Amino acid sequence: MSDDSDTFPAPVYKDTVLGPLFDTAKRYHAEPLLRVNRAHAVMLAERGILKREEASAILSALRGIASGFDANALSYDGSVEDLFFHIEGILTERLGIDLAGKLHTGRSRNDVDHTIFKMLLKRRLAGLLHGLTNLVDTLITVAHDNRDTVVVAYTHGQPAQPTTFGHYLGALIEVLLRDLDRLELAGRDLDRCSMGAAAITTTGFDIDRDRMAELLGFAQVQENSYGCIAACDYVTGLYSAMKVLFLNLGRFVQDLNQWTGFETGHLLVPDGFVQISSIMPQKRNPVPVEHLRLLLSTAAGHCDTIVNTMHNTPFTDMNDIEAEVQAGGYAAFDAGARALALLDGLIAAVRVDGERVARHIDASCITITELADSLVRVEGISFRQAHEVAAKLARRVVDGGETLATVPFDAVTDAFAEVIGRPLKLSEPEFRRFVSPEHFIAVRERFGGPGPKAFAASLAGYAKQLAAHATALAVFEDRMAAADAALTAIVDDYVGAAEPATTAPRNR
Amino acid sequence: MSDDSDTFPAPVYKDTVLGPLFDTAKRYHAEPLLRVNRAHAVMLAERGILKREEASAILSALRGIASGFDANALSYDGSVEDLFFHIEGILTERLGIDLAGKLHTGRSRNDVDHTIFKMLLKRRLAGLLHGLTNLVDTLITVAHDNRDTVVVAYTHGQPAQPTTFGHYLGALIEVLLRDLDRLELAGRDLDRCSMGAAAITTTGFDIDRDRMAELLGFAQVQENSYGCIAACDYVTGLYSAMKVLFLNLGRFVQDLNQWTGFETGHLLVPDGFVQISSIMPQKRNPVPVEHLRLLLSTAAGHCDTIVNTMHNTPFTDMNDIEAEVQAGGYAAFDAGARALALLDGLIAAVRVDGERVARHIDASCITITELADSLVRVEGISFRQAHEVAAKLARRVVDGGETLATVPFDAVTDAFAEVIGRPLKLSEPEFRRFVSPEHFIAVRERFGGPGPKAFAASLAGYAKQLAAHATALAVFEDRMAAADAALTAIVDDYVGAAEPATTAPRNR
Amino acid sequence: MSDDSDTFPAPVYKDTVLGPLFDTAKRYHAEPLLRVNRAHAVMLAERGILKREEASAILSALRGIASGFDANALSYDGSVEDLFFHIEGILTERLGIDLAGKLHTGRSRNDVDHTIFKMLLKRRLAGLLHGLTNLVDTLITVAHDNRDTVVVAYTHGQPAQPTTFGHYLGALIEVLLRDLDRLELAGRDLDRCSMGAAAITTTGFDIDRDRMAELLGFAQVQENSYGCIAACDYVTGLYSAMKVLFLNLGRFVQDLNQWTGFETGHLLVPDGFVQISSIMPQKRNPVPVEHLRLLLSTAAGHCDTIVNTMHNTPFTDMNDIEAEVQAGGYAAFDAGARALALLDGLIAAVRVDGERVARHIDASCITITELADSLVRVEGISFRQAHEVAAKLARRVVDGGETLATVPFDAVTDAFAEVIGRPLKLSEPEFRRFVSPEHFIAVRERFGGPGPKAFAASLAGYAKQLAAHATALAVFEDRMAAADAALTAIVDDYVGAAEPATTAPRNR
Amino acid sequence: MSDDSDTFPAPVYKDTVLGPLFDTAKRYHAEPLLRVNRAHAVMLAERGILKREEASAILSALRGIASGFDANALSYDGSVEDLFFHIEGILTERLGIDLAGKLHTGRSRNDVDHTIFKMLLKRRLAGLLHGLTNLVDTLITVAHDNRDTVVVAYTHGQPAQPTTFGHYLGALIEVLLRDLDRLELAGRDLDRCSMGAAAITTTGFDIDRDRMAELLGFAQVQENSYGCIAACDYVTGLYSAMKVLFLNLGRFVQDLNQWTGFETGHLLVPDGFVQISSIMPQKRNPVPVEHLRLLLSTAAGHCDTIVNTMHNTPFTDMNDIEAEVQAGGYAAFDAGARALALLDGLIAAVRVDGERVARHIDASCITITELADSLVRVEGISFRQAHEVAAKLARRVVDGGETLATVPFDAVTDAFAEVIGRPLKLSEPEFRRFVSPEHFIAVRERFGGPGPKAFAASLAGYAKQLAAHATALAVFEDRMAAADAALTAIVDDYVGAAEPATTAPRNR
Repeated sequence: MSDDSDTFPAPVYKDTVLGPLFDTAKRYHAEPLLRVNRAHAVMLAERGILKREEASAILSALRGIASGFDANALSYDGSVEDLFFHIEGILTERLGIDLAGKLHTGRSRNDVDHTIFKMLLKRRLAGLLHGLTNLVDTLITVAHDNRDTVVVAYTHGQPAQPTTFGHYLGALIEVLLRDLDRLELAGRDLDRCSMGAAAITTTGFDIDRDRMAELLGFAQVQENSYGCIAACDYVTGLYSAMKVLFLNLGRFVQDLNQWTGFETGHLLVPDGFVQISSIMPQKRNPVPVEHLRLLLSTAAGHCDTIVNTMHNTPFTDMNDIEAEVQAGGYAAFDAGARALALLDGLIAAVRVDGERVARHIDASCITITELADSLVRVEGISFRQAHEVAAKLARRVVDGGETLATVPFDAVTDAFAEVIGRPLKLSEPEFRRFVSPEHFIAVRERFGGPGPKAFAASLAGYAKQLAAHATALAVFEDRMAAADAALTAIVDDYVGAAEPATTAPRNR
Repeated sequence: MSDDSDTFPAPVYKDTVLGPLFDTAKRYHAEPLLRVNRAHAVMLAERGILKREEASAILSALRGIASGFDANALSYDGSVEDLFFHIEGILTERLGIDLAGKLHTGRSRNDVDHTIFKMLLKRRLAGLLHGLTNLVDTLITVAHDNRDTVVVAYTHGQPAQPTTFGHYLGALIEVLLRDLDRLELAGRDLDRCSMGAAAITTTGFDIDRDRMAELLGFAQVQENSYGCIAACDYVTGLYSAMKVLFLNLGRFVQDLNQWTGFETGHLLVPDGFVQISSIMPQKRNPVPVEHLRLLLSTAAGHCDTIVNTMHNTPFTDMNDIEAEVQAGGYAAFDAGARALALLDGLIAAVRVDGERVARHIDASCITITELADSLVRVEGISFRQAHEVAAKLARRVVDGGETLATVPFDAVTDAFAEVIGRPLKLSEPEFRRFVSPEHFIAVRERFGGPGPKAFAASLAGYAKQLAAHATALAVFEDRMAAADAALTAIVDDYVGAAEPATTAPRNR
Repeated sequence: MSDDSDTFPAPVYKDTVLGPLFDTAKRYHAEPLLRVNRAHAVMLAERGILKREEASAILSALRGIASGFDANALSYDGSVEDLFFHIEGILTERLGIDLAGKLHTGRSRNDVDHTIFKMLLKRRLAGLLHGLTNLVDTLITVAHDNRDTVVVAYTHGQPAQPTTFGHYLGALIEVLLRDLDRLELAGRDLDRCSMGAAAITTTGFDIDRDRMAELLGFAQVQENSYGCIAACDYVTGLYSAMKVLFLNLGRFVQDLNQWTGFETGHLLVPDGFVQISSIMPQKRNPVPVEHLRLLLSTAAGHCDTIVNTMHNTPFTDMNDIEAEVQAGGYAAFDAGARALALLDGLIAAVRVDGERVARHIDASCITITELADSLVRVEGISFRQAHEVAAKLARRVVDGGETLATVPFDAVTDAFAEVIGRPLKLSEPEFRRFVSPEHFIAVRERFGGPGPKAFAASLAGYAKQLAAHATALAVFEDRMAAADAALTAIVDDYVGAAEPATTAPRNR
Repeated sequence: MSDDSDTFPAPVYKDTVLGPLFDTAKRYHAEPLLRVNRAHAVMLAERGILKREEASAILSALRGIASGFDANALSYDGSVEDLFFHIEGILTERLGIDLAGKLHTGRSRNDVDHTIFKMLLKRRLAGLLHGLTNLVDTLITVAHDNRDTVVVAYTHGQPAQPTTFGHYLGALIEVLLRDLDRLELAGRDLDRCSMGAAAITTTGFDIDRDRMAELLGFAQVQENSYGCIAACDYVTGLYSAMKVLFLNLGRFVQDLNQWTGFETGHLLVPDGFVQISSIMPQKRNPVPVEHLRLLLSTAAGHCDTIVNTMHNTPFTDMNDIEAEVQAGGYAAFDAGARALALLDGLIAAVRVDGERVARHIDASCITITELADSLVRVEGISFRQAHEVAAKLARRVVDGGETLATVPFDAVTDAFAEVIGRPLKLSEPEFRRFVSPEHFIAVRERFGGPGPKAFAASLAGYAKQLAAHATALAVFEDRMAAADAALTAIVDDYVGAAEPATTAPRNR
């Protein structure tokens, strides 16, 4: 209840809000804010709102600020509200308010802020897409290398049927290609520039919104100016799509967890990924799998935090979507990037333990569906009858501790005769072949199946889709890079290229 | 620990799982399951896996089952696992296991189930898209009707600038058009048929997956068979996109809440939407706004429930994505549909209280940004200087309990002289015009602004985009309807058209 | 934009809100509302606000309404806002407005509603607590029965050390006892009556809030009247505590999932809980475990839906915490109750496969920590040195495909000599004993350990704690039952006991 | 697929997991780990497992490590797994493995880790409880100061009845007192020491678990050793309780948002908390309210992240509850602490604008409930009849743009006569008094009401409850402080007090 509260900023407000915000802005916003300033000055000059010599002076001063700028050296003292006013203050010192005060013509912190937020998210999204396309690329390679490597496919947590490791990974590849679709759609909504919306209603000055978008490397202008400031679906859409990705990867990690477990052991993890126990000398813990799980859980949690922060907020300009929340979301990218890199490294390093898989296939009778199917074809009985014969045989095999490869053929003929009431036509060699995992896989040549031709076609399709996504990513990034280069050249043209632009702060 | 647990199903399992699941299946699955059965029989016949007369007999029996089927009359008795086996049992009774047993050739409950889930979700999504396109259509109409209706635009919860109600709604329209993008992408992932994946690896039978997709009204086949059964992103992607929609609408509802509040009162709600108090005689509660908020919150919550249920599940076939969870998700559609309809009705019924808005604009000085801009243009001073003049004037106006329309012109000339150090050029009539809301809006003719030409162009664009979405929806629905009709015709061809198909159960 | 919206209720409002709300009220509120009416009439009479004969007449009419009330027969027609006014309407018809209009003295729908919500939640919480105390009771029994049954304890997903099944279950029991603490605290907040808060500020009538609480079976009055209507932590606190329970149980279910898997197989699930495959004849799916997982996930999701609905709502009376949301929360209780019952049945039915466990213990060397500890004691070396010896031996055993029971003793002496540089003192019989699971467990007699005495003490403590929780539950329920009985007796006293109260609607 | 993956750690694993974990451990764990080491050495010596001279040497070395320890100077190089082994390595260098290797007797990283996590959470919880008790204390003061300050109580977003600002705050105080209950229960579960659980089954060494708990300042030992390592409800229970607090505060903040809005303006925010616009000169944005909203939303989101990370994890030792996730949770404390401090400062600084409140009360007729109640008492009519009279009058007042203070008395007598059919007895002075806010509040002397006596009693009760919570907090903290002091004294006794303990690292 002190008198402190009558002068801005109240100490508690400085400590709990303005100071932390200034630190966030220092770390993330200085570089894009200076870039927006440059682009805005150029656009104003091109529209005749600034004279060319005014623009040159402003751009020169901005270059000077950028080259001498050490964001880390700043500390918040409460004399201005934020970094925006801090930089405006330096500009005013250098140029006087007559000239410096013209830079803010036809814009507002509101459109500047959302433009910066999108610029920062676009870079992060590009990074995530690189991580994801790399992973898909690795998966395609591993899937190709393992197109004939037999593994156990599970349903309801129990061994169900043999397939190839390649085919199993193909399912994941398709999921991730769809994740790329979702993330690209989110990227499209990031790629709309807010500049020109000003506070929320545009401006009476005859600015050029298209040109600002172009100078800043956006694909287009975001139209409705109120929406440029108030809409937050460019954020919620993005983080929602990311969460779906993290959940998808997390399900794969659950499989890795089982497959690398002591009892299942279908995947061998090399020593580089295995930790020990401080008191249990025998332990080999493939804990990277656990770390993947928790990284993906926390990445998903960070996504939720951002998305849910928007719940029941007004459809207006508000801090709930601004610097602090934006920066909080970067944690989702960080955790996600770590998970993608680790998964990429791990999946490239693991190997299927073929001998162990074979043993479990034998013990679990999981080729027997194909025996039933074969009986339908060879014996002309219905599938449900064949299923009954097969079930009877399976019980016999399991109860006797045998395998389909070793069970006496009598057991087969007996089971058939009991159910169908006539002798079996199938020969023993046919039977042994029909119950082999290799045969099981070989005959599954349906579209999307593990059969060699079908799967080769799938892989070719995946590679093609991945290439298309990689191209889209290149376009997305190239537009940013080209705009940066073009803006630098234009500024050089106004100011002269004396001071190298590379001394600008390079905060992420 | 009773002996009960040795015979399937254990009573507690029957009561807590199988019974409830059977009720869910009765309500939702009977009709699509019979349709899948019909399509599968047709496809098997076309591929020569069934003989034509076998297919005819099966299709005839299926028609008989469908016509006499009263799902509500069924109650679960534990004699079979589920509805699938219940219907197979009836078929077997009618045709014998020799013939009935052939229908399940080259498929599994797994691919059938996911196909059914997608069929049911597609219908629901179509319903949601209808609700949403209707709402956007209404919003475009209301925005057009209110293209000149002045309202207060808020930032950080405070009056900021005037704009038109149309322009404000334009921001929402754009958000919802992007929601349509997101939902359509989700719809694309629903439109991939799982049939032919069988248990998880396809089958050795030479089935035709494309034909099954076509017969069931899917746009395409989902390729990788493992993914057909194990991937759940068709669900998480959909519900994530829906949640984004519900959050977006919820933010608009927060504005409605403020705008219809007693103190703000910028929107008038007609009596049809106003409730009373049981003990406070004076009260007029526009509670539909609260109901919208809670409907959207709960709809979003149902989406989360489904999405989060997938967290840390294995990437396999599993019940966590099957009947019970699927049916749980329908609650999100139900709450969402109610919210869309109510919002549609409400937004069409409310009216801006122009007199009240004008009073608040006067009291809050929110046109003054334009005065600053005008000073830049007329007086040739910088924006930051003009901002200072305007701020000084605003304080004078507010402190004096005056308005920009009534403040003595001396106050303007004084403020200018004090800050700039020379007399004002601006005349009083110019000043009065520059601070009017009408002028404020009229000069904002930038792309995406509220100026009349700019906004007319925006509206035209929205209508065009909406039309494109409506067409996409029509294609989505027509494919389903056409496939239904085609399948009916084919079945008639096999069986003869004696019994009308309309007696089939029509559960949602 | 029709004229419909000028007359209450607008059709769309009736269809999307009032109708569904009326259905919810019919199903859940009729009985408690009539009870609140009875109690309020009694209290008003006791305070002299109603004359005794007025109270008698009202109570008599209320009994008549209750006995003839068929909530299911009602359908909402829009003539009144809700069930409250519907019942007031019947009362007015029977008694005239002069008398009927007196019942609503000193109260409001607001305090009535929250009182009803708490009454309904208290019953549900009592049900949940019964399910949970039953489960803990079963777990104590199973833990006692399996106090010597050896199992594998895992860390980081890998076999770590032997313990007993009882000891493992003891960990879960402790967690659930803490869940009981959390739920009881939540119950305490449900047990505060809102009656007398009226609309939000109490009333000028000299009502007796304590008496209302007593008549309705509450432990106490909720004090601040504004909070009686606006606070929702009785709901968020409850559902948050429930979510913690569901997450805790879900982790146990993940273990069940692994332990019942084909490759681990440490737990045998009887046939009553095992489902089959429609096309894979060999499969035995212990799918109840999956159903437990999804039931707990959805129960947790329903909790989140309720809790998150409160996010960013105002601290006022609002529909976001009222009938529709309250009823939505009951789904969490329903799913939770199913999960508790199923888990109770399943845990009572499963059996440890001791032979399999023994085989895996042998193969995984998990007793070797105790060998290291024994070397410390017997050989006087440091733990870290002993750990090195043991690690060397473990590698030898695992690489050689041997077990600690069968490895030649030379391997032990060699490993020791290599690391420590002197001969081993330990004899072979000592070594064999030290590496047996039985010895491992027997020596772990620390507080909270699996050793027989320590664990017996733990079990005794759990039983005592459970008994205390059961007593608390009995008190909680008895208060409700006693109040019901007392109120019935009082009403009988006013009206005469002619018509049996049992014909009152008994919807939960 | 490089050879990198065969040597631990694989580079990608080092970069994505071990390095970040080491940084986390450096920042948070060094100090408590050294403390646990000291306590463990003391306990082992007291039990005779270490000789006194061994313990002295170890404690001396540990002191040396602590005094020279500069965690920030460390950087992870992959040569050891983690900080634990790093410190063990230094100890081994100094003392040799013979002696250093004895410190890890009868424990494991597992019990050490969870003990450390709890120690760190206890300190953070104590900090949060300080912030919360301070806030409640401030609220009690402000409530007392405003026990007669009239404000508008809203229901369903509309003005409903007058009450006092004090009474309104009383509702919040009660909620926060219940939050203290919830957090204290969570604190009880943090206050159980895991030491002695070792890896997961305790140990064969005769350690003293009670003594470890005492030396480390825990209230008790956590019993079941498996649960000491595997149970995570000490985390989920805590963060769930915190989320409930943040949601509760967030609702109050929504009210602040409305109350400080331009149109409502019932609360005046001093300049210290008001920001300006970069282009709208007239704006006064009380943005601290928005920052409170987003801080609470993100704090709640961080809580959810931790809680939801536990979903569908196994009930075992796992990284998902360890260092990375624990440290992630601290963000919830940080955001929460900022929110509590800011809210405390803001609520102490705001003032009710009594003149504005009075105007809105007049305009909204919100005292009229009391008129209805008075008619019941004075005229002997039923409440429902009185409600009708009052409603008729309210419509007249509102439609005529009048107030209850100014409406001609004829309007009152007419309304009464029309509804009741006889003349009014009430005099005009009585009427004017009955409709004044002061009278409205004065007669509400029910338990928990705003009447002066009732509210004074409430405040006294709140102060008493707060004092009890403050005492509980003091006990909680004193136990930690006393144990620290005692351990230091014991160590001094073993080693001599030469080097000051204050040079130990003081990382949070």
